[in-house]
Amino acid sequence: MSGRLVIIGTGPGNPAQMTPQARTAIAAASDFFGYGPYLDRLDLNDRQTRHASDNREELARARAALAMAASGRHVAVVSGGDAGVFAMAAAVCEAIEHGPAEWRRLDLEIVPGITAMLAVAARVGAPLGHDFCAISLSDNLKPWALIEERLAAAAAAGFVIALYNPISRARPWQLGRAFELLREKLSGQTPVIFGRAAGRPDERISIVRLDEAQPEMADMATCVIVGSQETRMIARDGLSPLVYAPRSAERPMR
Amino acid sequence: MSGRLVIIGTGPGNPAQMTPQARTAIAAASDFFGYGPYLDRLDLNDRQTRHASDNREELARARAALAMAASGRHVAVVSGGDAGVFAMAAAVCEAIEHGPAEWRRLDLEIVPGITAMLAVAARVGAPLGHDFCAISLSDNLKPWALIEERLAAAAAAGFVIALYNPISRARPWQLGRAFELLREKLSGQTPVIFGRAAGRPDERISIVRLDEAQPEMADMATCVIVGSQETRMIARDGLSPLVYAPRSAERPMR
Repeated sequence: MSGRLVIIGTGPGNPAQMTPQARTAIAAASDFFGYGPYLDRLDLNDRQTRHASDNREELARARAALAMAASGRHVAVVSGGDAGVFAMAAAVCEAIEHGPAEWRRLDLEIVPGITAMLAVAARVGAPLGHDFCAISLSDNLKPWALIEERLAAAAAAGFVIALYNPISRARPWQLGRAFELLREKLSGQTPVIFGRAAGRPDERISIVRLDEAQPEMADMATCVIVGSQETRMIARDGLSPLVYAPRSAERPMR
Repeated sequence: MSGRLVIIGTGPGNPAQMTPQARTAIAAASDFFGYGPYLDRLDLNDRQTRHASDNREELARARAALAMAASGRHVAVVSGGDAGVFAMAAAVCEAIEHGPAEWRRLDLEIVPGITAMLAVAARVGAPLGHDFCAISLSDNLKPWALIEERLAAAAAAGFVIALYNPISRARPWQLGRAFELLREKLSGQTPVIFGRAAGRPDERISIVRLDEAQPEMADMATCVIVGSQETRMIARDGLSPLVYAPRSAERPMR
């Protein structure tokens, strides 16, 4: 079988944050599958073909890409950020597990990228400086009760929490409910970072206290980072504050 | 004040995984602070000065870098992986908070990088494909009881767990104790990935079941990823298995 499939994390959308490995992988592929806006960021030539699809069709997209790779093409599946973090790599693995045996024999490569929480964190200091977790707030594929359980467990155990997929037209109330729940577990003073389009020209970063956090501060392109009880904020004259999670913790939680 | 400080995540050590932003930041700086092996990876010129220090002297290194930046130099603090994940960005913020007021006025930039768990995950499939957390097993700066509490909470809530700083000469027993604790919470069949030097010539990746996991399988340069109860393993003839965390969860945890 001569076909190849490469799954590429293109980073947060700033070309300076896309790795040379991703750039090389893009240059080598013939056919590109992905969400339209991610494909729009690529600088493709005339011999390279786009196969754009909607953001909610990940499994169908993965199957189409695998089928084309199995036919002998050199196929790229493109994600923003890192392909392994709430993105296409898991969908491709799922399609392989449940697909024809020949898909398991494909030459498969995965190229990592800068995921959103890292790009956002770098803009404000070091909010992921101690133990942290990443939770997708999308309840399309998991029950909301499980998301609440994970939010509560993470806050109680002192993890900083990065929220992916915080809000969308189809999921308007989940982020507000998450803030409500976190306010029961954490001080209202806890810093919350709304990081939209970090590193891109349309970047918008804001830092508020948990008791001021509102779901309207986020959109689909936002990664929200909620601090722990140990997260610190450093005021700076004429500069935005620095937010960081100290490397040290003085005591057990309880 | 004309000095500048840039904190740079250089990625896992494969030059193809260092971003153009990091490369540009390195080219512009005059003085480099960091752990010797990370500085060794840089291609510095005659006008650029190395200030290498031991890995356990993060706060002293941060202060020295800040003092030099405040004196007007263009200083780079260099981390492997991402500077914000168990690395130098938090130490620099801590030094700023407790240091002289002029340090808060410095021109400070942080450049994100591919952190180890992303590089390891990309080599085996999509083990971070659903909610996950990152925990440092180092108890130099936090009590071991807190680490145990976080491991237990993460496993019970179904997070995939990435373990940073799993073992060292000074911390020989912690990883074995962590596996013991996780075996109480998770099935012995749970996939565990030992990812050493992912993407580098001396890369060594192994995938075992939790009941086979031994601390000797890791060293200082290893990131260990412990799956959740939902993590899947796909056997492939003649190829290493794929490990992934499905995007979907069928039911609440309990």
